[in-house]
Amino acid sequence: MSKQNEEKKILRKIDPLIEQLFKGKRRGCARLISYIEDYGPEVAKVIVEKVFPKTGNAYIIGVTGAPGSGKSTLTNQIAKRYLKAGKKVSVICVDPTSPFSGGAILGDRIRMKESFRKKDLFIRSMANRGKLGGLAHITKDVLQVLDAFGSDIILLETVGVGQSEIDVFKSAHTTLVVVNPGTGDDIQAIKAGIMEITDIFVVNKMDLPLADKKVRDIEAMLELSDTIEIDNDRHAVKVVSSLEWKPPVVKTNARDGENIELLLKKIEVHRVNQKKTALDRKKQIYRYKHYVLDILKGYLSRNIEDLIFSHPEIDQIIEKIIEKQKDANPYSISNEILKKFVHRL
Amino acid sequence: MSKQNEEKKILRKIDPLIEQLFKGKRRGCARLISYIEDYGPEVAKVIVEKVFPKTGNAYIIGVTGAPGSGKSTLTNQIAKRYLKAGKKVSVICVDPTSPFSGGAILGDRIRMKESFRKKDLFIRSMANRGKLGGLAHITKDVLQVLDAFGSDIILLETVGVGQSEIDVFKSAHTTLVVVNPGTGDDIQAIKAGIMEITDIFVVNKMDLPLADKKVRDIEAMLELSDTIEIDNDRHAVKVVSSLEWKPPVVKTNARDGENIELLLKKIEVHRVNQKKTALDRKKQIYRYKHYVLDILKGYLSRNIEDLIFSHPEIDQIIEKIIEKQKDANPYSISNEILKKFVHRL
Repeated sequence: MSKQNEEKKILRKIDPLIEQLFKGKRRGCARLISYIEDYGPEVAKVIVEKVFPKTGNAYIIGVTGAPGSGKSTLTNQIAKRYLKAGKKVSVICVDPTSPFSGGAILGDRIRMKESFRKKDLFIRSMANRGKLGGLAHITKDVLQVLDAFGSDIILLETVGVGQSEIDVFKSAHTTLVVVNPGTGDDIQAIKAGIMEITDIFVVNKMDLPLADKKVRDIEAMLELSDTIEIDNDRHAVKVVSSLEWKPPVVKTNARDGENIELLLKKIEVHRVNQKKTALDRKKQIYRYKHYVLDILKGYLSRNIEDLIFSHPEIDQIIEKIIEKQKDANPYSISNEILKKFVHRL
Repeated sequence: MSKQNEEKKILRKIDPLIEQLFKGKRRGCARLISYIEDYGPEVAKVIVEKVFPKTGNAYIIGVTGAPGSGKSTLTNQIAKRYLKAGKKVSVICVDPTSPFSGGAILGDRIRMKESFRKKDLFIRSMANRGKLGGLAHITKDVLQVLDAFGSDIILLETVGVGQSEIDVFKSAHTTLVVVNPGTGDDIQAIKAGIMEITDIFVVNKMDLPLADKKVRDIEAMLELSDTIEIDNDRHAVKVVSSLEWKPPVVKTNARDGENIELLLKKIEVHRVNQKKTALDRKKQIYRYKHYVLDILKGYLSRNIEDLIFSHPEIDQIIEKIIEKQKDANPYSISNEILKKFVHRL
């Protein structure tokens, strides 16, 4: 009851915040993101529905890689270049795991903030507060807010390359995977599942020995990997080494800013290529399918849970399992509940 | 297509395996568990439906605690006592994270195996193969098989105390939480979320200094914790410090077998107490509700995903979002899809 009241109170506050957001006020943007993170899908729904008509301008660049690969430094460098070019840039860091490096990143970013017009840069850290299944969903909602905020570029940085990160990157237009010279493991990691989301490979710390070898290794791997056709109806729409796009491998030194311009050019090539091949449309459908799927899965899970734990008839139905009535077992009873209550979902 | 054929092939093999299971043949039991782990919910459903009428005999004891707390050694000791008393014992270890300690545990268990009649002990390790959401569900299916196998006691041991472990323990009749003397952190961990599932606290390594202090700390914490009423309709049915049950704190030294008999007595007291207070019935309903919920969530997620990625109409509906048609956004379109296709779920 008090939770519902709180929700109502929040809903009344949303309109003025959205007005602020549309005017480019950072505080409105920050508050709306907090609401999405803190108050769950009902509040998120209201916010997304209101901001959605203003979305569609932002270009979303994903950056991922192992801890220590330099992806935060790289993200900062990319952000600086776009800021210099007069773009409005937002940065979201998803799931910073180590509090130590988190602090270091933050210090770095504060320095970055000071050297540019404050209003053109918005930085947000999203902790993975145990919302394993929900993180990709929340991130997608937050991306809508940042898009409606007027961001030209959204940099989406995550730590690690688990399934939840892969889901996050299904929202990106161009995804960079950062690796380092001399480490053999990451090629295996790349093979394991990251191929699906990679548009550009970045061999960062190019000043280290064996940088060229790492480039060749990745290129060889790309040669070997199957040329998967675009399958729009299924999960493999983002494809490595398709006829339409073969991920380039770019060497950088993010610390010194070396080759960042080159990387930006490759991102632009990727963007233009997607337009030319109409891949951007296919990817847009793919992105929204996953977004809609996240919303529906979350909605159905909550509803079925509410039903099981609050509908008065459920106890009686469950008792049939306990009493071992003929053909009553957890699966048959699940089926019975579904048939009886599906109209309530 | 070939996946469907494979499934059919598996289904034909199930009946003879279930016959073996009912005769107490370990190989049949092991194979059925592998099928549940490897072939997903359709196969699991068939197996559970067939074994379910034979379930209801097993008493399930959950054992959890931080890595290094000695819970595996404790599990072994408990298993030995029940074996000595002529019981048939099964042990499932869920999610062994470290391969090193995994090996050590295994060695220990092989020694244990040799000193008893082989047919009375069944041990199974279930790796958490990335099935984060599904692990609790799969474990519940496996418990049915072990129950129908004729196990008197099933020991369910997990590493760590995350949400997925808490979900796993919703299947246990009595859950032990193992802590050690002199570590302050675990009291915090206990407070955080483990209270819901704890029936008995075990202060293991009682030979270490400050064991009595740890007992007092836990007892003090239990005094302070609210006396929550049993709320059968919601999640808090398993309650610490309710009027019906206040978790005892037992000191043990699992390595030397000290106080294991005492611990077994406490488990028996808990079992009898649940019968007396009719709490066992409430908990049974609670357990099956969670089982049914797991089944339905999994089923709905798979179905909605199939729908989104294979129904021909979905693309057109999604296009409305891309074209920014009036009132079309990911949430409104999700709603439209749900209304239109809910009968297919």
